[in-house]
Amino acid sequence: MIYFDNNATTAVTEPVHQAMLPFLTEHYGNPSSIHQIGNQARVAVEQARGRVAKAIGARPSEITFCGSGSEADNHALCGVVMRAKEEDKLNPRSNIVITAIEHPAVKKTAEWLGGFFDVQVRTVPMQFEKGTVSLQPFEDAIDADTLVVSVMMANNESGLVLPVAEIAALAKGRGALVHCDGVQALGKLPVDVKKLGVDMFSLSAHKFHGPKGVGALFIKRGVKLTALMHGGSQESGRRAGTENPAGIVGMGVAAELAAAQDTASIAAKRDRFEAGLRERFGDRLVVNFADLPRTPNISSVQFKGADGNLLLIMMDQNGLCASTGSACSSGSLSVSSVLLGMGLKEHAAKGTIRFSLSHLTTDAEIDAALDAVAASLK
Amino acid sequence: MIYFDNNATTAVTEPVHQAMLPFLTEHYGNPSSIHQIGNQARVAVEQARGRVAKAIGARPSEITFCGSGSEADNHALCGVVMRAKEEDKLNPRSNIVITAIEHPAVKKTAEWLGGFFDVQVRTVPMQFEKGTVSLQPFEDAIDADTLVVSVMMANNESGLVLPVAEIAALAKGRGALVHCDGVQALGKLPVDVKKLGVDMFSLSAHKFHGPKGVGALFIKRGVKLTALMHGGSQESGRRAGTENPAGIVGMGVAAELAAAQDTASIAAKRDRFEAGLRERFGDRLVVNFADLPRTPNISSVQFKGADGNLLLIMMDQNGLCASTGSACSSGSLSVSSVLLGMGLKEHAAKGTIRFSLSHLTTDAEIDAALDAVAASLK
Repeated sequence: MIYFDNNATTAVTEPVHQAMLPFLTEHYGNPSSIHQIGNQARVAVEQARGRVAKAIGARPSEITFCGSGSEADNHALCGVVMRAKEEDKLNPRSNIVITAIEHPAVKKTAEWLGGFFDVQVRTVPMQFEKGTVSLQPFEDAIDADTLVVSVMMANNESGLVLPVAEIAALAKGRGALVHCDGVQALGKLPVDVKKLGVDMFSLSAHKFHGPKGVGALFIKRGVKLTALMHGGSQESGRRAGTENPAGIVGMGVAAELAAAQDTASIAAKRDRFEAGLRERFGDRLVVNFADLPRTPNISSVQFKGADGNLLLIMMDQNGLCASTGSACSSGSLSVSSVLLGMGLKEHAAKGTIRFSLSHLTTDAEIDAALDAVAASLK
Repeated sequence: MIYFDNNATTAVTEPVHQAMLPFLTEHYGNPSSIHQIGNQARVAVEQARGRVAKAIGARPSEITFCGSGSEADNHALCGVVMRAKEEDKLNPRSNIVITAIEHPAVKKTAEWLGGFFDVQVRTVPMQFEKGTVSLQPFEDAIDADTLVVSVMMANNESGLVLPVAEIAALAKGRGALVHCDGVQALGKLPVDVKKLGVDMFSLSAHKFHGPKGVGALFIKRGVKLTALMHGGSQESGRRAGTENPAGIVGMGVAAELAAAQDTASIAAKRDRFEAGLRERFGDRLVVNFADLPRTPNISSVQFKGADGNLLLIMMDQNGLCASTGSACSSGSLSVSSVLLGMGLKEHAAKGTIRFSLSHLTTDAEIDAALDAVAASLK
């Protein structure tokens, strides 16, 4: 099987796997235990915290490990709104601002918060000018009653890179907190939370060749969030529950490698794949969003007149794994709201396949993938 | 090092480790992806769900995997109270009933909910009669406005086994939902959620020789909880976030082994350890709670006149890992509220060490542990 679905999840690389193994076997201590076996795990968790912090330009104390990118997103948004409630700062004009192309972990969480706490959710449409995202809709949406603006750094389906720093500056100027879902960014783009100017930043290890079941939330020093999980005082009281040292250690190594990733070489592979598609299929397809800033590993390709879901099944039978939308939305056969939010027409969105590569993708796989697409289009 | 701290965490056993490994390496798919690589992971997750369900007498569809036992506890309690809020069923008399010896993941969550939603938290004191827990305080606490009763099956510090079925019957009779924190039960006691009559039951894999970073919540068919994490529709919409197949598969195998565990042989080891303590240290110590129903692996031992924390450090230097209270409360030097809640005087609680064994404990380790205690008491 050729795996062109690296935005859904990635393979754990060997250095990550090797780093994890001792913490699944001999170093099995609970990091909260104060004896030697516990301490081995504690030291490893703190070393990993330093690695993750360094990978995104944060301080170690600003990193809270958790169980997934979705948990990080939930912690950020629920944490802000619940804290405002606890401080009696909610008013009828209180609002959350998100974009029309956020991941369900942000979108659905915002919607739930909106209903539960009677807070407005303002969804900013994607408009483009001069080859990038227009700021005007953000200008229009964010005001003095905005509790938090949540904007992703890189979109999971289109690869679009959003102007987070500009949006954050705008939001901060109006007194809002800023959360960035950076789940699809690390390993594909340089990440520096200080330069971005955000208050919170979500990470998921399995999106950058780390293990599943572990994520992290950057919480800028001084930002106070209500915890999502109460109980023990792990993670400086920010997230109760016994830590997962094997997962955390794996995430640390993976983050370090991701931050050092040669992304230009991934873009070169992607460009080679897209050139091959154009050469072989000509005007039977359109590469979506090619004129927008994109992450280096993604090709969103519209096969004219095709049904994306059927095409996906054919490609799977021909040995090529890809997807139509996010894995978190799969199973549903409805058209991707993200692609519609990016401006595609419904028929175009329906015929779109997401191919997502990684540094592990080889030239031979690209050639074989082109053959698999050809066989599937017959 | 001799590890007598199995209530803090346990070593992953070889069958569990071997079952996990493929899902850290070649089978790296996202279970939500609809291609073959995703499907391998999906099948494994569902197989594990069946194993966990069988281990506790539940249906597979009643098992929701999550990131920890603490998350399961939070999901249960927050889920009940938030759902009641959403259904506009909270009133000034609404209350949550917990016991005085619950784990912080229940106690602190209940306290947080109490403050946030203006719900009463009623803490039932532990009283004992005829060698078991008295039901009268539960009779007194639970009423028609009780949203949920949360009672642990086995206490983490004392090993006390609570009469969950009786308490659940009482609570159900008054219309309350019942949550049981079963984190310390599986592998030490037979668990059958139907016989217990509970609506929710929390599990944590790393307490029964599974991996850290994975837990599960049994949610009885028909019970509706507000999700703790919103987003993708994983876990039938009950818990958003990419699943952790390696952890889940490990939990499945560990649960199957735990349910089949010969607990009498663990009790025999524990009894051998306690006999050795009594023989060597006579009236310098008291074995706490020995006349109460206890899990088979635990010895809570009061060393008269000793400081538990200092003794722990000495034992660690002499090669023996144990603890004073729960790992989730460690770092704090205050006296265990659980031990006080169990009826110990402050000086007795201060001098108490928790030794917790497992089926991996050998006779040679028991002898060496007795030597380590002797060396530490000098």
